[in-house]
Amino acid sequence: MTQQPELDIPSGAPARIATPGPGDARLARLSLNQRTTAHWSLREAIEGSVAAGLTSIGLWREPVAEVGLATAVQWVRDAGLRVSSLCRGGFFTASAEVAVKEAYESNLAAIDETAALGARTLVLVPGGLPEGDRDLVAARDRAVRAIERLVPYAHEHGVNLGIEPMNPIYAADRGVISTLAQALDIAERFDPADVGVVVDTFHLWWEPGVAEQIARAGQRIVSYQICDWITPLPADTLLSRGMMGDGHIDFAAFSSAVAAAGYTGDVEVEIFNADVWGAPGDQTLATMARRYVELVEPYLHV
Amino acid sequence: MTQQPELDIPSGAPARIATPGPGDARLARLSLNQRTTAHWSLREAIEGSVAAGLTSIGLWREPVAEVGLATAVQWVRDAGLRVSSLCRGGFFTASAEVAVKEAYESNLAAIDETAALGARTLVLVPGGLPEGDRDLVAARDRAVRAIERLVPYAHEHGVNLGIEPMNPIYAADRGVISTLAQALDIAERFDPADVGVVVDTFHLWWEPGVAEQIARAGQRIVSYQICDWITPLPADTLLSRGMMGDGHIDFAAFSSAVAAAGYTGDVEVEIFNADVWGAPGDQTLATMARRYVELVEPYLHV
Repeated sequence: MTQQPELDIPSGAPARIATPGPGDARLARLSLNQRTTAHWSLREAIEGSVAAGLTSIGLWREPVAEVGLATAVQWVRDAGLRVSSLCRGGFFTASAEVAVKEAYESNLAAIDETAALGARTLVLVPGGLPEGDRDLVAARDRAVRAIERLVPYAHEHGVNLGIEPMNPIYAADRGVISTLAQALDIAERFDPADVGVVVDTFHLWWEPGVAEQIARAGQRIVSYQICDWITPLPADTLLSRGMMGDGHIDFAAFSSAVAAAGYTGDVEVEIFNADVWGAPGDQTLATMARRYVELVEPYLHV
Repeated sequence: MTQQPELDIPSGAPARIATPGPGDARLARLSLNQRTTAHWSLREAIEGSVAAGLTSIGLWREPVAEVGLATAVQWVRDAGLRVSSLCRGGFFTASAEVAVKEAYESNLAAIDETAALGARTLVLVPGGLPEGDRDLVAARDRAVRAIERLVPYAHEHGVNLGIEPMNPIYAADRGVISTLAQALDIAERFDPADVGVVVDTFHLWWEPGVAEQIARAGQRIVSYQICDWITPLPADTLLSRGMMGDGHIDFAAFSSAVAAAGYTGDVEVEIFNADVWGAPGDQTLATMARRYVELVEPYLHV
């Protein structure tokens, strides 16, 4: 396809279609990654998700730690929500011994938390280059070794380590694994039950041959995260993600490929964007639900 | 290597090493891409290059057109400079018939100009997605067809079409060819004398397996352009390039790979950066010459 369907206009203005709500079967796989409503507390994110008719939520470690793991577990259980993934483990590219040890221990704790929350997937963001270090090949090798070291513990706890390849815009300071092909080269060294890949449209939409890589990934896809690539790119690259439909990504093609690969899990909306963060959370959820049923959900059925 | 040598401090402050000047053999392959001194006229860029001891310059079509092609040819000849490349052809991803025709004709003119200037290489920046079009695969296919159509004319004129793979940060709005592997997949359909690749550190430093792709490229490398990837990335992504040594790129490893592939041509410094543009041109040339002899030149000898 060369053109997306006409869209409702951005949040704040009247919508072109009705906002889907509780009980709408089209929302069955939609999940709010809680960083999309960054100003909401965990409690608010849970309540907001339920109110919007979602049955799944993607959590982050920091807000979970704020209320305590046991409380967080109780809240999501009481709300009847699935935890689609926990963000995030990783950041294990350091070379200094102390930092390597700290990263290892932090990741063990993250695996514990993932298991306690009943999530299948711990999202692994590899980390960037250590300060003053320009050897990207070596940093990538350290990431592979760190994953290898975590696999037995993850296996014991029934947690899948989801390697998240990241847009090269973050290769220096956040994620040294840059393509789905590269993530799969790593993941395929391990049992698919233990190590998978996170497919995020923002990170991968530009990758040459990405449709073939998604097909190759097959059951390795343990998380599908969506948001758009917008231009001009916002000034802060960390907050440069757009609402689906506001940018250049072909969600129909991408979602069809993910569905054809056999992925039947949740679809997390993860948007880091100052404008989105500035809007009321319930409005953001309404917009993302409308965009999802227009642009993504119809293409998730093989 | 994991660490670069200690650097002279940024432009404006006393340098740690003496600035190399006219007659210094280490500058024999250094070329100023004229956009690095964007506020300089063509005349100033030519005079500044000669004063700095350079024997080569990378030109852009617009400033050449401003003075007229014949005058530009005369000036570079009188100054005794080689033209390392002409920037830029390309921008041929449009789908509308009129735009396709315009792009084709503009590229024919660019080939004429390249030949007249005695440059071997016309740098091809493919262009991005047309307005409202989200089909990246189709846009890439149109780029391939556009190159194919230009080859006979380029061949007749002894011009090599240098495909420039661009950092994925530009995939939507500037360059749909994103990796050296992808550029080579295209270039290899043609005679190496007609179609090559431009290796630019900013665009390619993050590519998994880039060293292997550089080796694969071999004689297809028709231009080596350098600048650094800096963080935090400046707000305007078009002006986000840094002076060599200010960022995360391992110029030793990269330059060694390019040299090992057999590249013996000029090395163009191409920096789009508001701070660099704000500095006096002769100071920018002095800084880039020092950084080049420290970080790049020693690694260009196999």
